[in-house]
Amino acid sequence: MRIALGLEYDGRGFCGWQSQASVCGVQDALERALATIAGRDVRVVAAGRTDTGVHAAQQVVHFDTEAERPLSAWVRGTNTVLPDAISALWAQVVSDEFHARFCARSRSYTYLLLDRHARPGLQAGRVGWFHHRLDDDSMRDAARVLVGSHDFSAFRAAECQAKTPFRDMHEINIERCDDMLVFRFTANAFLHKMVRNIVGSLVYVGCGRHPPSWIGELLNHRDRRRAAPTFMPDGLYLSAIGYDAAWKLPIRSDHAAIAVRG
Amino acid sequence: MRIALGLEYDGRGFCGWQSQASVCGVQDALERALATIAGRDVRVVAAGRTDTGVHAAQQVVHFDTEAERPLSAWVRGTNTVLPDAISALWAQVVSDEFHARFCARSRSYTYLLLDRHARPGLQAGRVGWFHHRLDDDSMRDAARVLVGSHDFSAFRAAECQAKTPFRDMHEINIERCDDMLVFRFTANAFLHKMVRNIVGSLVYVGCGRHPPSWIGELLNHRDRRRAAPTFMPDGLYLSAIGYDAAWKLPIRSDHAAIAVRG
Repeated sequence: MRIALGLEYDGRGFCGWQSQASVCGVQDALERALATIAGRDVRVVAAGRTDTGVHAAQQVVHFDTEAERPLSAWVRGTNTVLPDAISALWAQVVSDEFHARFCARSRSYTYLLLDRHARPGLQAGRVGWFHHRLDDDSMRDAARVLVGSHDFSAFRAAECQAKTPFRDMHEINIERCDDMLVFRFTANAFLHKMVRNIVGSLVYVGCGRHPPSWIGELLNHRDRRRAAPTFMPDGLYLSAIGYDAAWKLPIRSDHAAIAVRG
Repeated sequence: MRIALGLEYDGRGFCGWQSQASVCGVQDALERALATIAGRDVRVVAAGRTDTGVHAAQQVVHFDTEAERPLSAWVRGTNTVLPDAISALWAQVVSDEFHARFCARSRSYTYLLLDRHARPGLQAGRVGWFHHRLDDDSMRDAARVLVGSHDFSAFRAAECQAKTPFRDMHEINIERCDDMLVFRFTANAFLHKMVRNIVGSLVYVGCGRHPPSWIGELLNHRDRRRAAPTFMPDGLYLSAIGYDAAWKLPIRSDHAAIAVRG
């Protein structure tokens, strides 16, 4: 039996999503908890991998098990054994054709960036920070060129293992709420550290170091070394996974916008 | 010279605001940091004391010092030595008549309450939780009777040291944002655990255990034992301190609403 499971987590305290020899990944914690409920080993496959310190408001995994449990056991039971910083939100039986990663048609990431003189305190570890006010109009202007299908080599980490640097960016949205900038990126998929690399370069535009047209130049040059440094993981949230409605997963399209309040 | 300082903090990891023998209070951490900048001991007086696990989006303190430092040193310098979970937001020289506690005309507390079947994960420690949807209309209806000047003995902790149980509740606002309820209470001052005791009893109304009129009965009986248990500290934020405009403190009246996103 294949089960799909939705979860959220605070990425601090974990060495990223992926299972590690030192079992410090979110995946390790989740597999341990599911094994307790199943009474046998469970291996999960996730829609998206998150790096150390990156959070998720909506992550989706699937796993196969012969253990027959009510769906409530996969949610409430799992939550009694998971660490506090991880919560299972829903579980659903799916057909064997469902694959959390390969069936995902889009991923959305939200980046929260506090732009004020004082560093975060109340939100430490949960927001990125720039020490003075950024020009969000010029950042919005600059980001427009990234929408569409492009070779994103300029924003790809050296260690990225993707087969191709082409990605289809569906939408970029930048909203200001007082001294918090909320970036939302939706694409078919993302390269390793792509969002944090884009945010870093947009910050260079927002602080006036480069004009908005610089982002288009970076994209065209496809040279990671020309772009800004990778921005800190603290403000990054995997915030939505898009699946075909036919899978009937209980994912609410508006979940991310609401769950990521920073 | 007297200096007023605004700060925010995540209350997890501290044993409340107040200085303790075990120096685990937010006050202890702040006094240590200020002493580093001043090069001598500093004692602070706060507008409001917060309990263990309670947060602040806006706390105000004052302190007296003979150390002459630029205001930026009291903010940026202090932030370099404070723990990550505390941030100084602003500093201002004030006259010796200013007193952070006695000059405060009002305090606002915000309580964030997640009402869904799955416990918090991403927001663990930062929101309260009830395991199913509450009826916010009846809670709003019930809360109305608390506005005004009343004897709040029904919602006063046994260990409360206030001289009188009378408080003037200026406003109670309850908003729903999907599965998050945002309560905002503004009063001249609060009794010990008063907000968490009121929230606990409002939850009893919201889940249908008692009708909205029950809150008025509790208030009239002035008997703490009749009311609901104290609700968890996780979702509670000291979110604003109101001072006379004549003090010219750089407090923005809308700060709390924005800073507390939960």
